[in-house]
Amino acid sequence: MSGMGEFELIAALQRHLDPAADGLGIGDDAAAWAPTPGSLVVATTDMLVEGIHFRLDWTSPRDLGWKALAVNLSDLAAMGAAPGRALVSVALLPGQAALVEAMYEGIGELARLTGTRVVGGDTVRTSGPLVVNVALVGEADPGRLLRRDGAAPGDILMLTGRVGASAAGLALLLEGDPQRLARPEAGPLLAAHHRPVPMLAAGRKLAELGVRCAIDVSDGVASEAWHLARAGGVAITLDVGLLPLEPAAVAILGEVVARRLAVSGGEDYQLLFTAPEARAAEIAAALPEDARPTIVGRVTGPHPGGRVELIEDGRVVEPVQAGYAAF
Amino acid sequence: MSGMGEFELIAALQRHLDPAADGLGIGDDAAAWAPTPGSLVVATTDMLVEGIHFRLDWTSPRDLGWKALAVNLSDLAAMGAAPGRALVSVALLPGQAALVEAMYEGIGELARLTGTRVVGGDTVRTSGPLVVNVALVGEADPGRLLRRDGAAPGDILMLTGRVGASAAGLALLLEGDPQRLARPEAGPLLAAHHRPVPMLAAGRKLAELGVRCAIDVSDGVASEAWHLARAGGVAITLDVGLLPLEPAAVAILGEVVARRLAVSGGEDYQLLFTAPEARAAEIAAALPEDARPTIVGRVTGPHPGGRVELIEDGRVVEPVQAGYAAF
Repeated sequence: MSGMGEFELIAALQRHLDPAADGLGIGDDAAAWAPTPGSLVVATTDMLVEGIHFRLDWTSPRDLGWKALAVNLSDLAAMGAAPGRALVSVALLPGQAALVEAMYEGIGELARLTGTRVVGGDTVRTSGPLVVNVALVGEADPGRLLRRDGAAPGDILMLTGRVGASAAGLALLLEGDPQRLARPEAGPLLAAHHRPVPMLAAGRKLAELGVRCAIDVSDGVASEAWHLARAGGVAITLDVGLLPLEPAAVAILGEVVARRLAVSGGEDYQLLFTAPEARAAEIAAALPEDARPTIVGRVTGPHPGGRVELIEDGRVVEPVQAGYAAF
Repeated sequence: MSGMGEFELIAALQRHLDPAADGLGIGDDAAAWAPTPGSLVVATTDMLVEGIHFRLDWTSPRDLGWKALAVNLSDLAAMGAAPGRALVSVALLPGQAALVEAMYEGIGELARLTGTRVVGGDTVRTSGPLVVNVALVGEADPGRLLRRDGAAPGDILMLTGRVGASAAGLALLLEGDPQRLARPEAGPLLAAHHRPVPMLAAGRKLAELGVRCAIDVSDGVASEAWHLARAGGVAITLDVGLLPLEPAAVAILGEVVARRLAVSGGEDYQLLFTAPEARAAEIAAALPEDARPTIVGRVTGPHPGGRVELIEDGRVVEPVQAGYAAF
């Protein structure tokens, strides 16, 4: 963006937000507030724009619907919250009604799998790219909310599932090599890109277990670790060699590229969280099979403003900054 | 829209909605559900697209922000609900950051006046028109929700405030005559168009008084009466001669045009509601000054599928259908 970068814009907009005494505001993956004592409402919204967040020649309308809901569900998962009711707004061109209906089918598919109810929305015309906005309202157990600012010195850093698969799928689409796209290993990578599975059960289990700090991996593990470090005022080391890679990504793209995408590719929608080291085994055993966690780093101490160091083979490779994207 | 009209599209999309046993679904101005016994959450969303719903050469960014929140607050008013928390999503072009910040200021202005808290949102890029989506979550008193389907035969039809002012303001903008735009009477008409005031206090008072049926006037009184008739399975007569006109609209556009805009102009955001005739005086006395109601018609009997007749000088002028727009 010209004149004002994205981070400056978000900072400017935050001045207009009004997190209440009972609310968490924009700093977290979702906003949370207590309408009545003993209850906690969690709400989030994400807007997807054709040509920016998706391409209709790469993404089927059904997959687009799935993903539009999935990215919001992932925000709730990162708070340890349960869905939920969704409101879906769509701006479409004349002639796109059938496409939008197929998109709704994809939303409905994931909604049924996750217990989400699509209760309303808005459908309007546009003269430009297709825009889909999902607003999602869920509930969490008061006192058991996962937050970005809960990392404590001495905690270990853990990650559910594997990372880099979605970015590997996107890399194959960008490359457009039909031979590589036709390889059987491309299947799970494209599926990870088109139909990410939000870690709802894992998020709720982490909250139940008393874990206090988590974020979902939308922008890449290194970038999310930086958000946790900044919110918690701590220094974090992230061991690149420990990141759990997707075997299909290694098979098609090689280990070096697969690892780079695991660090900073994004759109994994796994959960990155911190916990006391003594509880790692217990937490690992309690999480669902598809969310089996890996220890990927450590909170080394307090650090006002936050700090993240990438470690490889025991050496500091690179410090991570806001908006970190390249390896 | 080609191929599929707007109403068919909405009908198609409704099949994918999942109003729960405790919910009202898409048929009303907002969705409502009870997360815990004794509480009722009401949620709504509206998307505004540049070039379709607003023009940046006519609307200041601050006014755009005000209106984007106002149209959602009006949906809550029509349910008798109170705000609320808002999530604001914006798709903007590079270079529009300052514009979007001014828009947030307008949102903040109305938010403070109405006790709404803007707790989060999403800010993304686009290659096309500016898009603003507001999702709003509020609360209502269980058992005291205003609904579209509550009209009963014998009820009178009442309307808060005056209608046609916003459409008159838009007519002046469309006409673009600098002399008419400079007349002092243009001021309140342009203000009605740019800064509609949601009837929140009136909606809550109606709910408190036990009124059961209301809708906000977004598409024009005749069209909204038709929604009430269809939802309630009743026949409604709307007396065009009784509609409370804005004196400034009469002064600039003449009474014939002002009355036509009052019937079908839209964007008034007044509340159209039904009540037993015996309670009209009590209700009128209880409503706030700016929402002083007028009797504008009557529910004449049951009518499966709904029916609305426009009456003028005691004669039926015209039946009203779905999507009714012209006088």
